[in-house]
Amino acid sequence: MAEQRNIMLTLEYDGTDWHGWQVQQNARTIQGELEQALAKITGEAIRLTGSSRTDAGVHALGQVCNFRTTSRIPLERIPFALNANLPASIVVRAAKAVPAEFHARFQASGKRYKYKIRNSHIPSALQRNFCWRVPGQLDLTAMQQAASFLQGRHDFKAFQAAGSPVTNTVRNLICLRVTRTSCTDLAICAIGDGFLYNMVRILVGTLVQVGLGKRLASDMPLILSQRDRLLAGPTAPPHGLYLEKVYYEEDPALTLEMC
Amino acid sequence: MAEQRNIMLTLEYDGTDWHGWQVQQNARTIQGELEQALAKITGEAIRLTGSSRTDAGVHALGQVCNFRTTSRIPLERIPFALNANLPASIVVRAAKAVPAEFHARFQASGKRYKYKIRNSHIPSALQRNFCWRVPGQLDLTAMQQAASFLQGRHDFKAFQAAGSPVTNTVRNLICLRVTRTSCTDLAICAIGDGFLYNMVRILVGTLVQVGLGKRLASDMPLILSQRDRLLAGPTAPPHGLYLEKVYYEEDPALTLEMC
Repeated sequence: MAEQRNIMLTLEYDGTDWHGWQVQQNARTIQGELEQALAKITGEAIRLTGSSRTDAGVHALGQVCNFRTTSRIPLERIPFALNANLPASIVVRAAKAVPAEFHARFQASGKRYKYKIRNSHIPSALQRNFCWRVPGQLDLTAMQQAASFLQGRHDFKAFQAAGSPVTNTVRNLICLRVTRTSCTDLAICAIGDGFLYNMVRILVGTLVQVGLGKRLASDMPLILSQRDRLLAGPTAPPHGLYLEKVYYEEDPALTLEMC
Repeated sequence: MAEQRNIMLTLEYDGTDWHGWQVQQNARTIQGELEQALAKITGEAIRLTGSSRTDAGVHALGQVCNFRTTSRIPLERIPFALNANLPASIVVRAAKAVPAEFHARFQASGKRYKYKIRNSHIPSALQRNFCWRVPGQLDLTAMQQAASFLQGRHDFKAFQAAGSPVTNTVRNLICLRVTRTSCTDLAICAIGDGFLYNMVRILVGTLVQVGLGKRLASDMPLILSQRDRLLAGPTAPPHGLYLEKVYYEEDPALTLEMC
């Protein structure tokens, strides 16, 4: 019997036209497309394990997943063979052999996200699916102050989607940095040892309210301590969000310069 | 009878899903969508004049067009009213009243284009419609040398699509600059007093051949002097091309720093 290999894939995708990562009945998903492509190239019914179940519209530059196979397809052929069987909005950037016990989700030591905001009263045709357009003038300094209150190890229950079953809501938000990238554009970088469901989007929605003057940077400690989703801001739309990197073993803090 | 106004629009569009600028039978075009939206907001059958007939897949950040109307819709309402009746991939950025004799095409004193190249053996999901991916390693210095031979006032007949009826093929290519914008990305900026059909894309196709070592930078003067389309390189694909700005009255050379 052929030896079973455990293989890790690094993925880029444009989330615009997909119903998110996770396989669903009657909806095309990124995991679903990848599993179909894997079936074609290996002849096996393969179930992928993703590091993160990105929502519909969310993009990825460095999503990670793994799968086990007894197929003998050479490792270096896997990206090309999969890309030839995938729509152009999903790309396998790399394939790597990993130890048998490797699990893309449970073994992740951290993740880095970026959220892009276009601060303009004029819509953008070219960026419409790739950033959140906020028409009102944003106060960058106030947003940076609020972010500095949120950075660090805290109980982020207020920043978790209501109804989530996760009970341990303490996470280390190693970095939450707001920067201006052009005269109209802001980027928010978030690095953490783990993120609750919708956490980045709720953090961004709250920071934007601060930027618009609808709440104060100094309200952040109270929101954290009250642990009440209703006190935090709205969930920012998915299409500004990018999963940039998933960390394994390495310390996420070591890549702070990417932020 | 109501007074007739001449109105200039500045447009951004994502050319991916459109059959180019110009109205066609049985194909959706940017001009066609705009004329439909104008009919809705003015009640008139309006024919637009565009500065440039961009091809299918070509993008614009600053396309310009004009139209005449007796509708009394206030100028400042026009962008909002049109955008509310346009698909999100076409955006009217500004509307301006112009003299009765203004003609978006005949009065343009120059144009600025950008062409984006991703130099990587890995496809990009997010940039697939927004740059030309060239897998082979490009020699930036050689491309810059070739561009310096092409910059200036020349007969660009070799860089005009075969079969074009235009006979005066002398143009002033005020700027042709190749820059590295990230570890994988190049941008080519082209500013000129006018461009022949497919001229930017043929220039880019030729520069990429130089970058790949398939021809020499020093071949450029011969290609220009022979005036033979077959001597220049292939036409680069449309989806890397952006019409950034159309100049009227102003001297295009005054915005060289944008290049």
